[in-house]
Amino acid sequence: MAGNSFGQLFRITTFGESHGVAIGVIIDGCPAQLDIDMDFIQSELDKRKPGQSKITTQRKESDTVQILSGIFEGKSTGTPIALLIPNEDQRSKDYGHNVDVYRPSHADYVYDAKYGIRDHRGGGRSSARETAARVAAGAIAKLFLKQQGIEIFAHVTSVGTIEAPNLESNDLSALLNIREENIVRCADPATAHEMIEFIDSVRKDGDTVGGKISCVIKGCPAGLGEPVFDKLHADLGKAMLSINAVHGFEYGSGFAGSELRGSQHNDIPQPKAADSKVFKTTTNFAGGILGGISNGMDITFKVAFKPVATIMHNQQTINAAGEASEIKGKGRHDPCVVPRAVVIVEAMAALVLADQFLRNKVSTV
Amino acid sequence: MAGNSFGQLFRITTFGESHGVAIGVIIDGCPAQLDIDMDFIQSELDKRKPGQSKITTQRKESDTVQILSGIFEGKSTGTPIALLIPNEDQRSKDYGHNVDVYRPSHADYVYDAKYGIRDHRGGGRSSARETAARVAAGAIAKLFLKQQGIEIFAHVTSVGTIEAPNLESNDLSALLNIREENIVRCADPATAHEMIEFIDSVRKDGDTVGGKISCVIKGCPAGLGEPVFDKLHADLGKAMLSINAVHGFEYGSGFAGSELRGSQHNDIPQPKAADSKVFKTTTNFAGGILGGISNGMDITFKVAFKPVATIMHNQQTINAAGEASEIKGKGRHDPCVVPRAVVIVEAMAALVLADQFLRNKVSTV
Amino acid sequence: MAGNSFGQLFRITTFGESHGVAIGVIIDGCPAQLDIDMDFIQSELDKRKPGQSKITTQRKESDTVQILSGIFEGKSTGTPIALLIPNEDQRSKDYGHNVDVYRPSHADYVYDAKYGIRDHRGGGRSSARETAARVAAGAIAKLFLKQQGIEIFAHVTSVGTIEAPNLESNDLSALLNIREENIVRCADPATAHEMIEFIDSVRKDGDTVGGKISCVIKGCPAGLGEPVFDKLHADLGKAMLSINAVHGFEYGSGFAGSELRGSQHNDIPQPKAADSKVFKTTTNFAGGILGGISNGMDITFKVAFKPVATIMHNQQTINAAGEASEIKGKGRHDPCVVPRAVVIVEAMAALVLADQFLRNKVSTV
Amino acid sequence: MAGNSFGQLFRITTFGESHGVAIGVIIDGCPAQLDIDMDFIQSELDKRKPGQSKITTQRKESDTVQILSGIFEGKSTGTPIALLIPNEDQRSKDYGHNVDVYRPSHADYVYDAKYGIRDHRGGGRSSARETAARVAAGAIAKLFLKQQGIEIFAHVTSVGTIEAPNLESNDLSALLNIREENIVRCADPATAHEMIEFIDSVRKDGDTVGGKISCVIKGCPAGLGEPVFDKLHADLGKAMLSINAVHGFEYGSGFAGSELRGSQHNDIPQPKAADSKVFKTTTNFAGGILGGISNGMDITFKVAFKPVATIMHNQQTINAAGEASEIKGKGRHDPCVVPRAVVIVEAMAALVLADQFLRNKVSTV
Repeated sequence: MAGNSFGQLFRITTFGESHGVAIGVIIDGCPAQLDIDMDFIQSELDKRKPGQSKITTQRKESDTVQILSGIFEGKSTGTPIALLIPNEDQRSKDYGHNVDVYRPSHADYVYDAKYGIRDHRGGGRSSARETAARVAAGAIAKLFLKQQGIEIFAHVTSVGTIEAPNLESNDLSALLNIREENIVRCADPATAHEMIEFIDSVRKDGDTVGGKISCVIKGCPAGLGEPVFDKLHADLGKAMLSINAVHGFEYGSGFAGSELRGSQHNDIPQPKAADSKVFKTTTNFAGGILGGISNGMDITFKVAFKPVATIMHNQQTINAAGEASEIKGKGRHDPCVVPRAVVIVEAMAALVLADQFLRNKVSTV
Repeated sequence: MAGNSFGQLFRITTFGESHGVAIGVIIDGCPAQLDIDMDFIQSELDKRKPGQSKITTQRKESDTVQILSGIFEGKSTGTPIALLIPNEDQRSKDYGHNVDVYRPSHADYVYDAKYGIRDHRGGGRSSARETAARVAAGAIAKLFLKQQGIEIFAHVTSVGTIEAPNLESNDLSALLNIREENIVRCADPATAHEMIEFIDSVRKDGDTVGGKISCVIKGCPAGLGEPVFDKLHADLGKAMLSINAVHGFEYGSGFAGSELRGSQHNDIPQPKAADSKVFKTTTNFAGGILGGISNGMDITFKVAFKPVATIMHNQQTINAAGEASEIKGKGRHDPCVVPRAVVIVEAMAALVLADQFLRNKVSTV
Repeated sequence: MAGNSFGQLFRITTFGESHGVAIGVIIDGCPAQLDIDMDFIQSELDKRKPGQSKITTQRKESDTVQILSGIFEGKSTGTPIALLIPNEDQRSKDYGHNVDVYRPSHADYVYDAKYGIRDHRGGGRSSARETAARVAAGAIAKLFLKQQGIEIFAHVTSVGTIEAPNLESNDLSALLNIREENIVRCADPATAHEMIEFIDSVRKDGDTVGGKISCVIKGCPAGLGEPVFDKLHADLGKAMLSINAVHGFEYGSGFAGSELRGSQHNDIPQPKAADSKVFKTTTNFAGGILGGISNGMDITFKVAFKPVATIMHNQQTINAAGEASEIKGKGRHDPCVVPRAVVIVEAMAALVLADQFLRNKVSTV
Repeated sequence: MAGNSFGQLFRITTFGESHGVAIGVIIDGCPAQLDIDMDFIQSELDKRKPGQSKITTQRKESDTVQILSGIFEGKSTGTPIALLIPNEDQRSKDYGHNVDVYRPSHADYVYDAKYGIRDHRGGGRSSARETAARVAAGAIAKLFLKQQGIEIFAHVTSVGTIEAPNLESNDLSALLNIREENIVRCADPATAHEMIEFIDSVRKDGDTVGGKISCVIKGCPAGLGEPVFDKLHADLGKAMLSINAVHGFEYGSGFAGSELRGSQHNDIPQPKAADSKVFKTTTNFAGGILGGISNGMDITFKVAFKPVATIMHNQQTINAAGEASEIKGKGRHDPCVVPRAVVIVEAMAALVLADQFLRNKVSTV
């Protein structure tokens, strides 16, 4: 109950601190007989790892994942899958200046308030480094979902006030290729270029900036999601809000939908073609989810990230005694978190979907 | 795991369908020795009950709550508290026309897809009637929190495109009085008047409209929230997204925060006064939560509700066979859900806070 | 987490005190489309209800079960099933003498120690009356299991030092008929007669006596049970030990097995007949469970019940102040709990099996 | 839900197979600020490790525990504690003969039946090697309990039909010293000698034998245990039954208690001395637990272990096709499991107590 587990049937528990020996994750509940593609898992981690471009932190971590258990001759066995990612470039001494000073908008103070003790090296457990474990577990969830025909695609749709236009394509593989051709991971090349220029200028200012990530899930069958508390979008929302720096979540019509009338917002069901198993509506304000349960349409949601709190400016703050203090701008951090967070969003979505997929298997006799 | 429970230590399980015998809730984990004020619980239910004004549904339910267990001589005993709310004005025959037709943007189709069977009377389990049980349980959570000095206040801050100005007052009791003086539950009287006029005109059009509710929590100590998945705002987000018709959640700076730079967004800690136990910051973009843990500042969040799907217009749709069909506009429903949802938002927030309060009690030796 | 729920996927939460308004249970996770035979549920409750014979308590309760939710037109809908059993013959005043005195070997003192408050009427929550709710839920689990071909049969195999001989029959229906022909619920008529005479004499002495119940489960497929903590026999053991007055649990060879050698205890697998799907062994010391997982053989276990603590003798004790006191022998209680507990043992076994059956559905891709 | 976690608030998740890279455990919920004595943890593992005497398996494992997270400068931080124990002496090739043959009374067949895939090397996940992870976690639970004044002591009280006399001493440290002076871990030296001789003779026969372990817990305050399903003895029973080879559990009067009358079995409370906080009874048939809640008296229970299934005799069996086969007697295994299981019993008891201790902290306002 201490909050380091996520999911009910496809359940993960992560562990590890930013500057400890290693981080890792246990997946308990991955069904047996799943083919485990280690190269895919590593490629997912590579999309999140630090140091991958000029607009990410320069901390160097190879983020090489090791399997400790649960996989035998390339397949899941139904027993817990333990994945380990050693920490390499720890440079804990960089953080000596944080021991007694509370960095503005970081979790330093609240960890002290909660636990009376704090691993101050690089944020300890509150560091976004923990999300590497999620990406590794999410990659296995993706492998499971792929087998079910479910695909997840996220990309950066805003940085600061720069917004990407809406995507038209239904071909997620094509979009993925476009996205991976630029370092900001926006599937619109022109906007991507603008975003990269902007982040780079922010970085040169020693500052940071927020952004948004949009996600679409295709191929999800109708029926996933559990009334009344574990609605599919409620689980997705919690998953996204649990990612470092996220301040908002909306699905389907989202906040804008609150301005509409029912006669505008209702999605009108279309008669099914004889050969179709799928329910379709003319519009998709519902974001593929009605009453908390997937309806077979594309699932769409958006996630808002605040700007990273670590900036290269000196800032006023307080120390553990509550006295005025100043913090120097130094360390290695991202000017904008969204390019690396795209794969985290996908991973958490995959974990939710895999969990709800399994839960739905016991809905009927 | 079937999704009808919420919370870990202060845990509720709700049951009941819109047009069944009764709805209700079991609270398992309410600490012993809490004074239970039944009048308060009933007064909370009265704020949610149907038929309370011209801008709510005309279904008549007294929503009188009965205690079945867990309370002895006015105090909680530590055993499960069972609360029952009988259904009175069921008029199931009003829903005969729904048996075989899927109402647009309702959960009819997805329940059939998931379970292969559906209680079609008024939405069955998918009806927002279930939230009465949440309000009853939330009232007990509020009694617990009040004892800890924690207060929760929500009100309607937008209807359609009508937005209320930001509130300045720190006196939640005063705001509550203002809010309860108008039927839309907006704490700004001028905006409230405008909202009521608008909802009434929408109702006369046979239409519905969405809106937003803002919530502030005062007196919350630092330390509530569990890293890394059960962050306080992640639990709040899930709680809110589990409420019928909610399409978005943001806390603190929210979506707007994604447009800012770190140098703008960081909340600068202020030196503590000698007699203060409280951490204060100049600004509160964090919404009172850092790293998923409360920091002692006001907790602020906002919830977006889509327009109610039931409208008094005829609509195209399909039947269970997937064939084109038409649905007539009739039944009894709310033109705008937010006035009655204010107390639901507060109830769910109270349940999250009570749960995290208890969880925090075991954080240290 | 407060301990009033049992099961993961087929999950029950019970509520209610001995002398409150009602007791009841919520089943969350019963699969949809199950035919619910209300007469069967009531007939199970009738086997547990008080006042059914001269060797049970004379408290009169019809134990009539009411459905509040989750069942529509005779079938489960996948939503929570709420079952209510009103208390009728409460006679709380019989318990006025317990307010301040701790009855020997009852839970009075420990409830005070734990909660600082206690519903002293007839044991409150610690009363075995709570098990009626389990029997109602267990009856639904049995209906689910029956559909899967799984049958559960328990009967009284000892009272005091009177032991029944081992059963030979494989026909559980026949055994059930024999069992129900006598009021002690032993499937060996001669032993049953002896047990009844003995319990009646104990009753006349104003005393009570313990006993044992044996249970066999037939038709269970191989594969139920989850390594490593939720082994099938570990869940069965917890289920049985959670029943009032149970002091011991063993399965298969049990305690006697600890005296054997491996060469005696190993069950030798037999070659499968061409048309058989079932694994068979020459002996069944394993009790149908290997490594915590069912192997397709009969599952066998035994449960030991202590004598009921309420006796019709005056006893020395202490009051809430810790001072010497005396308690008078009065009230209405069972001289021996096992005849009424047979159906409770079966109900809890059914709940474990139903839960593990559902859990096993997600073991493989 | 896949069964590899135990406990609610002090919660462990174990992972790893007998012949994989490593085994390990995550503890989620260990309170912050606990002093972690690594030498103690290692010393506990040393009591379980293989190869420690002539009456244990000759597999050689140093069982050196590594900390991956959750401990900073010698103290728990409130974040997940990950402990890793690498596998060293794997000799997987010894198990090549098991690939296609089901060893009698092993879990080979049921893992195939459940998962359709099996890590056949040395039992894979079903191996008792997994219990090393429990011992490591249990050692931390013991450190927590020691701080609360709670002590746990188990020892071997029977091997085959050799039974140790009842212990009289109240000094658990003294008993521990006596116990650790002999390799069978019986606190009665004369019986220990007899047991060792017997096990050695059984070993020379290529056979194995079962036994029993008794446990006493001193210093437990009144109030631990949660009605109605998570009774303290129900959790202890599940914990013990989840240990490999356990076939029975009883507490207090146990099975023998079922033969007694209430007038014999009731424990009579004694008036409290003015300076005592403790409830005492003349006898302790209750085993320190009433209504599932500790009453402050010694908690006592007993666990029965079947003989190890691996024997050095050739045995008839079947292969995966269901055909008759023979299995050769070879490999490295214990002639009797109880000497090494003593510390496992203590570890699981510690995990239950630590969990219930934390749960009790939220019982009252």
